[in-house]
Amino acid sequence: MRISVLGTGMVGRAVAARLAEVGHDVAVGTRGVDATMARREPDAMGNPPFATWLAGHPHLLLETFANAARYGELVVNATEGTATPAALRAAGADNLAGKVLVDVSNALDFSRGFPPSLLVNDEDSLAEQVQREFPQARVVKTLNTMNAHVMVHPESLGGGDHTVFVAGNDAAAKATVVSLLQQFGWHDVIDLGDLSAARGTEMILPLWLRLMGALGGPAFNFKVVRATG
Amino acid sequence: MRISVLGTGMVGRAVAARLAEVGHDVAVGTRGVDATMARREPDAMGNPPFATWLAGHPHLLLETFANAARYGELVVNATEGTATPAALRAAGADNLAGKVLVDVSNALDFSRGFPPSLLVNDEDSLAEQVQREFPQARVVKTLNTMNAHVMVHPESLGGGDHTVFVAGNDAAAKATVVSLLQQFGWHDVIDLGDLSAARGTEMILPLWLRLMGALGGPAFNFKVVRATG
Repeated sequence: MRISVLGTGMVGRAVAARLAEVGHDVAVGTRGVDATMARREPDAMGNPPFATWLAGHPHLLLETFANAARYGELVVNATEGTATPAALRAAGADNLAGKVLVDVSNALDFSRGFPPSLLVNDEDSLAEQVQREFPQARVVKTLNTMNAHVMVHPESLGGGDHTVFVAGNDAAAKATVVSLLQQFGWHDVIDLGDLSAARGTEMILPLWLRLMGALGGPAFNFKVVRATG
Repeated sequence: MRISVLGTGMVGRAVAARLAEVGHDVAVGTRGVDATMARREPDAMGNPPFATWLAGHPHLLLETFANAARYGELVVNATEGTATPAALRAAGADNLAGKVLVDVSNALDFSRGFPPSLLVNDEDSLAEQVQREFPQARVVKTLNTMNAHVMVHPESLGGGDHTVFVAGNDAAAKATVVSLLQQFGWHDVIDLGDLSAARGTEMILPLWLRLMGALGGPAFNFKVVRATG
């Protein structure tokens, strides 16, 4: 499938590289291609500049948000939550219409430092805000509850025996996303229901951030342990 | 230890019975003893009236919030989140001073039906509100992220291989609580740090409620799967 991944940060890189690895044709979307390629310094998290990273992934395309969204049959929003509305507007409603839009972002506000605060509560979610603004996109929320590496390599942790959630209003779109998740190696995908369930997964971030502190790093995930029989 | 459990609902009953079972002397606290004992109808969740339940647990005392709090060397708040401030005021600051106050409540508002909405966000938590109002109590947040039965019988689910969180400002109080959790059968207790981490565990409730719907019941819990080595 032709897939576009909007966002050039850790999450966008991880998802784009893994989608290509499992056989998809991938375009990464950015606000300005020249500016992204011109960066020479590591980002705030110490990641290498995008051009350095891209050189190691020669099959990936780098395009503007609009061109990338036009290219993809399916679009992944991997921008930071605070940057998501502007990125999707730049991608363009026409380029998203009718397509599965996988939202992996979180509405975290880092403007007052770490830990960030959450910009949504259980009256709304970032995913629903996106769906309201782009009603013709088929938004599916997933993968926002774990570290970028765990997202695309679930087998790296506990033999892959842990959980990823999906939520969305379009059953066929969710089925498409579940299939992609299985290609990544996910075995336990829980369908939480309609897109308002994204409130629940987005609100797990404050606990996730505390756990990262308590455990000394991001290499963990939640498993939903159920009663058997 | 002499322990008081404030609250006569499902959570209060489960915690009180289990504490007695593992050898503690337990007083259950209620707003009005006569009114609680006079109820003859099941509650909204279909639980038997308290008097019926108490008849099966003859070693438990039933006292007013104030008398129960006075009795306990350690106090458990198992009231509903919306009822917590009034219950603790009735218990009395003097009766809580210097004691470990285990807060297992959640700030859920059922006034608009099910699912309830959450009355806190990651700027504050019910546990911190309690700590601010009762600064001499040694508040520890725990057990608010699973069903009442799972709280006290973790072995009933997945062989007990799942996680409970603690948060609090007083290390000795947390150690006391961890010891009680171990008596209940908990093996994986994660200390999230100071009481502000209760924001994270309280905000997991919207996901918990969605999971209860998706899985068809409350017999589940989160396990934090970590990288090994």
